[in-house]
Amino acid sequence: MKITFLGTGSGVPAKHRNVSSFALQLMNKTGSIWLFDCGEATQHQILHTPIKTRRIEKIFITHLHGDHIYGLPGLLGSRSFQGAEEPLTVYGPRGIEEFIQTSLNVSQTCLKYPLEIKELRAGDILMNDEEWCVRCEQLEHGIPSFGFRLEQKDTPGPLLIEKVKEAAIPTGPHLKLLKEGKDITLEDGRVIRGKDFVGPPKPGMIIAVLGDTRFSEKSIQFCIGADLIIHEATFRKMDEQLANDYFHSTTVQAAEVALKADAKMLILNHISSRYQSPDIEELLHEAREIFPNTFIAEDFSTFNIG
Amino acid sequence: MKITFLGTGSGVPAKHRNVSSFALQLMNKTGSIWLFDCGEATQHQILHTPIKTRRIEKIFITHLHGDHIYGLPGLLGSRSFQGAEEPLTVYGPRGIEEFIQTSLNVSQTCLKYPLEIKELRAGDILMNDEEWCVRCEQLEHGIPSFGFRLEQKDTPGPLLIEKVKEAAIPTGPHLKLLKEGKDITLEDGRVIRGKDFVGPPKPGMIIAVLGDTRFSEKSIQFCIGADLIIHEATFRKMDEQLANDYFHSTTVQAAEVALKADAKMLILNHISSRYQSPDIEELLHEAREIFPNTFIAEDFSTFNIG
Repeated sequence: MKITFLGTGSGVPAKHRNVSSFALQLMNKTGSIWLFDCGEATQHQILHTPIKTRRIEKIFITHLHGDHIYGLPGLLGSRSFQGAEEPLTVYGPRGIEEFIQTSLNVSQTCLKYPLEIKELRAGDILMNDEEWCVRCEQLEHGIPSFGFRLEQKDTPGPLLIEKVKEAAIPTGPHLKLLKEGKDITLEDGRVIRGKDFVGPPKPGMIIAVLGDTRFSEKSIQFCIGADLIIHEATFRKMDEQLANDYFHSTTVQAAEVALKADAKMLILNHISSRYQSPDIEELLHEAREIFPNTFIAEDFSTFNIG
Repeated sequence: MKITFLGTGSGVPAKHRNVSSFALQLMNKTGSIWLFDCGEATQHQILHTPIKTRRIEKIFITHLHGDHIYGLPGLLGSRSFQGAEEPLTVYGPRGIEEFIQTSLNVSQTCLKYPLEIKELRAGDILMNDEEWCVRCEQLEHGIPSFGFRLEQKDTPGPLLIEKVKEAAIPTGPHLKLLKEGKDITLEDGRVIRGKDFVGPPKPGMIIAVLGDTRFSEKSIQFCIGADLIIHEATFRKMDEQLANDYFHSTTVQAAEVALKADAKMLILNHISSRYQSPDIEELLHEAREIFPNTFIAEDFSTFNIG
């Protein structure tokens, strides 16, 4: 999978950090892309990446602050203008439907693809298919703000070809059953157990995406065992009081969530524009003191994971 | 006055042409700025100019298509976040209030300055103060689309100091009355006529800003005598049928409006992204064949006028 950050700032756009959005390319057969938040000019940022809007199948909105949603109407409209006919689902807090529908209606924008809008309640399981289970939980922010926990299903282990050869199992359609872990009976009467000829399954990734939030125990529980946490870090360590006042987190608080959740990797975004390049090194340093495998995303940063 | 184009494309943003917006800096004592249309990422474009959002006093919206309004909620919110307390008035077609209020309400954006929203009817006089008279007229587009005619009041002529000296008029507070064109009586009994000592008034500018529109006689009437027309040219001459089908204008049609309205200068914007750099020269050439004093605006083009 590949993650591309499209906006890593907070509140208002700045020259080098746009407001919130990132894309998760699943790298599956259909080239699915999931978008998380959609601040103003997300579609403009996409113009500078290889991302095709028609491939965006789902958009997850963490909360309704303008810096997370004002790019939605334009992106939805342009996706249609660019010829997409593939359906799209938007998940977001209550109110997201009113915002989208009013924007499209007032501007008389007719989409040429089916758009589904699903409003969130804490604990909802948003999807649970062969590849992914996604659920949401409410965090601690000034308005309802959600985290999304993406649990990828395990990939079945490969058929152990060498072992098959050693056991002199003839080729044929029964190998497909064997690969699926099923038992088969050969023509010579031997019963072959699937589990003996299939390697261990590849565990699926767990990705926790947190919207704007104060530090809380709930966040830790929500992120338990994650391979990757994407967490806001609006403020640096010494601005903890500001973070608390404005319902945001510091670098160090995000790192503590990752540490206590026993996560493997942490990416910080939603960085206040008060911090410039020289400060960013310091922000990274203080987070890494708590949780070494931390990164701070810049606009257009990409991460290959899984 | 100074005009800065912030977005000169049409429909959807492209790398080098954002969706519609331009700023008119009045260069008056208060540094007033008027914005015309506000496509998505207008506030992002402004970051690359010297324009301060707190100086934007009025926003004129020609019509409600997304490429002309989706930048409004973000700009209004950021203007507040950046500390502006000066009032702002938005003029736009019916529906603009619903769009703005829904966007601000859903995102729980509280503005720290007074926002007034005035919905337009054809023929409305939007303002008429000491400096400007602004009225609107409905054009020909798929949805209600307006043009704005800005008529600057004449600036009184200067006091002709040399003539005052020649007539041996003593200095004093009465010179102020004379400058205002009033008659005064000197201590020596002479009656001095103000009109003899004041130069001719400087005529105010007339600027006609047209929203998206098909070519029509109405446009010509609306632009009569304009010093400057800012007119859409979504298509080139040979794509006249497309222009007609989509309720837009060609370069040549815009130039004909300028010619028949006896205007002095024409700036074309809202250029379709189908035309790239080499085509633009051709678009300009075909318009100039009809109306020589034509320019095609690029993003960040500036024009000093008046």
